[in-house]
Amino acid sequence: MEHLLSRRAAGASSSVIRDLLRLVDRPGVLSLAGGLPAPEGFPVDRIRLAAERALAGGGRYGVTALQYGPTEGDDELRDLAAARLGAPAHDVLITTGSQQGLDLVARALVDPGDVVVVEAPSYLGALQALRACEPVFAEVGTDECGLRTDVLEDLLVAGLRPKLLYTVPNFQNPSGATLPLERRRHLAALADRFGFLIVEDDPYGVLRFRGEHVASIRTFSDRVVTLGTASKLLAPGLRVAWLAAPEWLFGSLVRLKQAADLHTSSLAQRIAADVLADHDFLAAHVRRVGAIYRERCDALAAAVVDTVDVVVPDGGMFLWGRVCGDAIDTTELLPRAVELGVAFVPGAAFHVGDGGHESVRLSFSTLTPAELAEAASRLAAAIDLTRRETVVPGSLLSAGHLGS
Amino acid sequence: MEHLLSRRAAGASSSVIRDLLRLVDRPGVLSLAGGLPAPEGFPVDRIRLAAERALAGGGRYGVTALQYGPTEGDDELRDLAAARLGAPAHDVLITTGSQQGLDLVARALVDPGDVVVVEAPSYLGALQALRACEPVFAEVGTDECGLRTDVLEDLLVAGLRPKLLYTVPNFQNPSGATLPLERRRHLAALADRFGFLIVEDDPYGVLRFRGEHVASIRTFSDRVVTLGTASKLLAPGLRVAWLAAPEWLFGSLVRLKQAADLHTSSLAQRIAADVLADHDFLAAHVRRVGAIYRERCDALAAAVVDTVDVVVPDGGMFLWGRVCGDAIDTTELLPRAVELGVAFVPGAAFHVGDGGHESVRLSFSTLTPAELAEAASRLAAAIDLTRRETVVPGSLLSAGHLGS
Repeated sequence: MEHLLSRRAAGASSSVIRDLLRLVDRPGVLSLAGGLPAPEGFPVDRIRLAAERALAGGGRYGVTALQYGPTEGDDELRDLAAARLGAPAHDVLITTGSQQGLDLVARALVDPGDVVVVEAPSYLGALQALRACEPVFAEVGTDECGLRTDVLEDLLVAGLRPKLLYTVPNFQNPSGATLPLERRRHLAALADRFGFLIVEDDPYGVLRFRGEHVASIRTFSDRVVTLGTASKLLAPGLRVAWLAAPEWLFGSLVRLKQAADLHTSSLAQRIAADVLADHDFLAAHVRRVGAIYRERCDALAAAVVDTVDVVVPDGGMFLWGRVCGDAIDTTELLPRAVELGVAFVPGAAFHVGDGGHESVRLSFSTLTPAELAEAASRLAAAIDLTRRETVVPGSLLSAGHLGS
Repeated sequence: MEHLLSRRAAGASSSVIRDLLRLVDRPGVLSLAGGLPAPEGFPVDRIRLAAERALAGGGRYGVTALQYGPTEGDDELRDLAAARLGAPAHDVLITTGSQQGLDLVARALVDPGDVVVVEAPSYLGALQALRACEPVFAEVGTDECGLRTDVLEDLLVAGLRPKLLYTVPNFQNPSGATLPLERRRHLAALADRFGFLIVEDDPYGVLRFRGEHVASIRTFSDRVVTLGTASKLLAPGLRVAWLAAPEWLFGSLVRLKQAADLHTSSLAQRIAADVLADHDFLAAHVRRVGAIYRERCDALAAAVVDTVDVVVPDGGMFLWGRVCGDAIDTTELLPRAVELGVAFVPGAAFHVGDGGHESVRLSFSTLTPAELAEAASRLAAAIDLTRRETVVPGSLLSAGHLGS
C-alpha cells in the first residue's frame, strides 16, 4: 500500500527532533539534547487560576473556552500578542505553537524549487516544515553575531533570488547568537531591495537574562512575518503562539490554518490571554525565569570551558560551539556520550548542507547547576574516550612506523 | 508582494465555513447554519475537575500538561482512543481536531491530479483540506442510506482509480444519513479489490439518539483510516481528536504532524484522557447529551415538515433536504432568510460539482425547541417571499398571456 503515499510523504526524512525527544527520556542520561524549557519556570499556580476562570465564563454559545472559535484566534489574545509584536491586531494570527506558524508560512509561500535562505546552522523544526514544500535551500553562514548579512548581500548581488529567508534573531537555536541592530537594518534593506520575505522567528526574546533589548527586524521593513510564542514565556504544553503577517499574506495564512485545524484550542488561548493580561504578574515571572536560565547558562559555560569553545549567550536555552582540540565528529561522539550518561545534539543536525560536524548544541534549561557540572564532566570523558579509540589504531601504526 | 504566494495559497478559495461562522454571530438571527454542538451538552464541571487534576500532576519534566510531549500523543489518551476506535494503541495518533487528521491524511496521500472520491453531498472541511492538495474529485451520489456503493462499483469497474475515498458513515454532515452494514461491507470489499484507502470520518457516532449501533467500516478491511473526536463527545474548544491508520501510513502521518504543530495541546489531551477514563460519568453524559439532541431533532423535523422534505436521522446534528414544492435556489434564498432572522447552509456548498441547489442543511444543535419552531416559521416565510418575488414577473406575463 506504500505506493499510495504522496511524493511529500514518501520523501519525508525520518525525524531528528523526534529521535532526540526519545534520548531525553532514557533513564540515567543527563540530557543536554532537549529543547524543553525549565519546568521550574512554568507559572503553574497562575495557569491553574486562569483555567478556573476560563471554565467559569459563559458566552453566547456556552463556555467560550470549550466552544468552536474564530480561526484568527481569541480577540483578547490577539490584542495582547499584537502589543508584544508591535503590530496591529488585525495582522495577528494565533497558531498551534510556532511550529504551525512555520508550517503555514511555508505552505503559503513555497512551491517546489523555490529558493529559501536559511542560516547555517538553523532551527531543525523550521527546516522540517520548509522541506515538506520541496524548496531549494541556500545556506548563509553565521558568526558569533548571527547571520552574515554581508555574505547574503554578495549572493543576492550575484543573482540569488529567494522567496523567503528564515532567521532566529535572538539567542538563536542552536547557536545562541543575537543579530545586532545594524545587521537587522541591513537585512531589512536587502529584503526591500531584492523583494523577498523575512521570517523572523522569535521564541527566545523573552528569555533575555542580560544585555539590552534589540529592536525586531519588522521595525525596519514591511516584508517581515514575525513569530512569537507562549511556549517559553508560559508553557509549551499549551501550544499557543502568534504571528504578525503583512495584509497580502494574512488571508492565505488564515485559510490554510482553517483547513489545518480550524483554530487553536479555545481553552489554551483563554488561559494564555488571562495570564498575559496580568502585566504585574508577568513582569515578575519573566524576571524569575530569567534568573533560573542565567544561573544555568553560566554554570554550564563554566563547566565546559575546557571542552567546548562556546560564546556565552545573553539569553535563550543553548550553548553552541566546536569541541576543543583536534577535530572530532560529534555525530560519532553521541552514542559514546549516551553510554556515559550524557546527551547533546550533534551540530550536523542543524545544517541542510555539509557542516557542523565538529560542533555540539548543549541545552542548559532543564538541569540544575550541579547536574550540568556532572553532565559536562561526562561529556569530557566521552570526548577523551572517543579520541583515544579513534587514535589508537593510528597511534599503533605511527608507533610501528617510528619504531621501524 | 502577492507574486510571492505559492500556487496552493493563490488558488485557495475563500472559505465557506468561515463565512458561515460569521452569520452565526449576527444578532437577531436564529442560526440553523452552524455546526456548533449544544453548549448545554458540555460537561463543564467534569472538565474543570480534570483541568485541576492535570495542573496538579508532575512528571519528570514538570507538570506533564504544560510540557512538550510526544507527537503521537498522550499515552493514556491513545489507549482510550484505541478502545473507542477498535484499533491497537500503536496505530493511534492524537490530532488537533479531526480537521488536522483530514489535513494530514490528505497531505500524506494526495499528489496533484490524484483521484479522490467524495460523497455528494460531502463535508465542507474535508473538501477544503483535500483541495489544498489539488486532487481531481470524483463525486458519487447518495440516497437516504448514504453512499451509493453500487454506483461506486460501476465507476470502478469502468476504470476509475481513486487513491482515497472520504466518507462520514454515521449521521453524515450534511445529510444525516447512516450507511447500512451491507454497504459498509461492500465498500470495504471494493477498497480491497481496487486498492484504494477509505477515510472513515466518524465525529457523530457518539451522538446516536435512537436505533442500533452499526459496525465501523474498519471492521471489514485494513485499508481504512478512521477518525474520531472529543469535539462532540466532550467539547470542540479542546481541539482533541484521534485517528487509527495502517502501519504503512502511520509513520508518515506522525512526521507530517511533527512538522505541522509538534503535538496537540498537552493540557487539552490530559483533560480529555481524564474525562474519557471516567466510564460511568461518560455513559451518563452521553445519555444526557443524546436526550438533548433527540428532542431538538424531533422539534425541528416537526416544525419544517411542510417546508423541507427531510429524512429524520437517528443521531448527529443536522437535518437535510430539498425545499418542498417548486424548485427554489437555496443560495439565493439565504440572504432573504437572514433578513427575516434565520440562517441555514445552502446545499450547493456541500458539492464539488454542480448539485444541491434546491437543498438546505439545518442544524438543530444550538437552539431550544421553541427557538427551532420560530426559526422554521421564519424559514417558511423567507421561502414564500422569495417565491412570490421570483414568480411575480412570470405571473404577470402568464396572466397577460392567459388574458390575451
